[in-house]
Amino acid sequence: MSVKNNAETDELYNSPFMRACRREPAPYTPVWLMRQAGRYMREYREVRDRVSFLELCKTPDLAAEVTVTAVERLGVDAAIIFADILLIIEPMGIQLEFEKGEGPVIHNPVRSALDVERLQEVESVESLDFVMEAIHRTRRALRPNIPLIGFGGAPFTLASYIIEGGGSRNYVHTKTLMYTDSGAWHSMMSLIARGLAKYLNAQVEAGAQAVQLFDSWVGCLSTDDYREYVLPHTRAVIESVKTGTPVIHFGTGTAALLELMSEAGGDVIGLDWRVDLGEAWQRLGDVAVMGNFDPVSLFANQDFISAQAKRILDRAGGRAGHIFNLGHGILPETPVDNVIALVEAVHEMSQR
Amino acid sequence: MSVKNNAETDELYNSPFMRACRREPAPYTPVWLMRQAGRYMREYREVRDRVSFLELCKTPDLAAEVTVTAVERLGVDAAIIFADILLIIEPMGIQLEFEKGEGPVIHNPVRSALDVERLQEVESVESLDFVMEAIHRTRRALRPNIPLIGFGGAPFTLASYIIEGGGSRNYVHTKTLMYTDSGAWHSMMSLIARGLAKYLNAQVEAGAQAVQLFDSWVGCLSTDDYREYVLPHTRAVIESVKTGTPVIHFGTGTAALLELMSEAGGDVIGLDWRVDLGEAWQRLGDVAVMGNFDPVSLFANQDFISAQAKRILDRAGGRAGHIFNLGHGILPETPVDNVIALVEAVHEMSQR
Repeated sequence: MSVKNNAETDELYNSPFMRACRREPAPYTPVWLMRQAGRYMREYREVRDRVSFLELCKTPDLAAEVTVTAVERLGVDAAIIFADILLIIEPMGIQLEFEKGEGPVIHNPVRSALDVERLQEVESVESLDFVMEAIHRTRRALRPNIPLIGFGGAPFTLASYIIEGGGSRNYVHTKTLMYTDSGAWHSMMSLIARGLAKYLNAQVEAGAQAVQLFDSWVGCLSTDDYREYVLPHTRAVIESVKTGTPVIHFGTGTAALLELMSEAGGDVIGLDWRVDLGEAWQRLGDVAVMGNFDPVSLFANQDFISAQAKRILDRAGGRAGHIFNLGHGILPETPVDNVIALVEAVHEMSQR
Repeated sequence: MSVKNNAETDELYNSPFMRACRREPAPYTPVWLMRQAGRYMREYREVRDRVSFLELCKTPDLAAEVTVTAVERLGVDAAIIFADILLIIEPMGIQLEFEKGEGPVIHNPVRSALDVERLQEVESVESLDFVMEAIHRTRRALRPNIPLIGFGGAPFTLASYIIEGGGSRNYVHTKTLMYTDSGAWHSMMSLIARGLAKYLNAQVEAGAQAVQLFDSWVGCLSTDDYREYVLPHTRAVIESVKTGTPVIHFGTGTAALLELMSEAGGDVIGLDWRVDLGEAWQRLGDVAVMGNFDPVSLFANQDFISAQAKRILDRAGGRAGHIFNLGHGILPETPVDNVIALVEAVHEMSQR
């Protein structure tokens, strides 16, 4: 390894984001924003005028371009590779489509034990090489102090998409399978977890400094259900990630699940805006925390945004291990100037 | 008042449901189910084949019929008048429609301070006399030991419907008004609260023994937002309800809000299925609690349903002030036999 490479590695290792993941003091509170490369940004929309969402995911140059552009434009402290939480279900034999304005649609949803048996074990993630290639190119294009985050959906969120065939309000099919055929359920969750383990480690291998598991829909579950049907599988994924790579474990609507999510694992636990950051961190104990800013607050004026950010920073109280973020992804109509103002406000107010 | 009436009044007053509302011991845990008169029940669908949802609400004989039928069919311990949480917004000048399979749609949503100024003060709830008439007829038709619950949407849930114009995922318009024009927001919430006070008391006057406030969408808010923008208005409504009439204060996705909801008021606090009933009751202190059974569990088999019900009863531990219910309304495809089995299981397992 050349001297330059060592220096780069040190710069990444000591970046505010990576320090916060390890709960080491940082010169200011690092901030990045879920879905920071997205529809709200003109540069992104211009790329999307030429290609579909899935084409963008599958074209490494373009995926790298929108990933890096978002970082440069916003001045955030971490990049997250442009991809989709569901990509890993394709090599399981699930046909995934993104219909215009509709979000993901699955035409062969899994509903029975027989369907579960037909799922394919992910022997290799070669078919997702475009993600690894995008990570590789993004890493080369990013400044050497900006860590790159790889990610995937968490087992429950992936399972619920696979079973419902798309978004859901009540998760009737998912819970019915869970409640009536726990054997099939656990077998499906294990298969997903094994696929995820391969996928996340391949992203690390390709150049990601951290990985995030998105359990976006887990908030529909009771604590009992989470403990029995979800926790062991999420834990298996997190334990499989290469040692030394921080794992961010994120969900929304999880006010009752925080302790159990932390029990499942993760160096950093994602918080939505519903919980008080101070109380939530107290409950979680010795982990780093991320999130907590309501994405809808970005529709208000900049004084309000700054005051809301201050409230969160005050509750974190300068404690090591705080990563500023939204409680969920940026919404499509969000004014980009407000996003930039938020990033600046966080940097300014958290200087130490 | 005749002797018969006194005896009836005593029977109502001492019914398991009313005793539980007052946190007095009851011979068994009373149970009723939100949306117990609904699409999942053949008898209800037969009525709905003849009239629209709104026509059903506005025809006292039919509203009474479906209300009473649900009680008789299920063997539950309380009736809830068939109506909609949104009816009270019509006399505020809001045009409410229920489109087939679409839920409520409002064609003149409130988006600005000017729109708020155009809202009408509810001087009288005479235009909702059909609800009071339905309550009157239902009370006469119900057995004398079955209390009747009146209800309305809580101020936040009504405001969010009025502003969004229907259901919503992110409540962008609602929160934007809240965050950018708090004067208009509070003025709207006060107007709604005053209307609700009149409406709920008219329902009590007409023969309801208890009232429920449905804050179905409040779970999208942070604790800070709830405290500042919602709590004073919900409290105003609850404080205005005639003394001696129990108020049930219900919401979903409220794991982080329970203490604040209780601070706003209510003799009984509704719990969704996400929280552990034992822990939640501990946090709430000296109030009665209701709910906690996941409506989707009703799609599983009856052994599972019974085991889930037992778990909730065990956590309540026979403590006075527990009303068994779902954590949200019954879903349209729910098998009616499972609903009946749940009611029987609760009665059987909670005999004291």
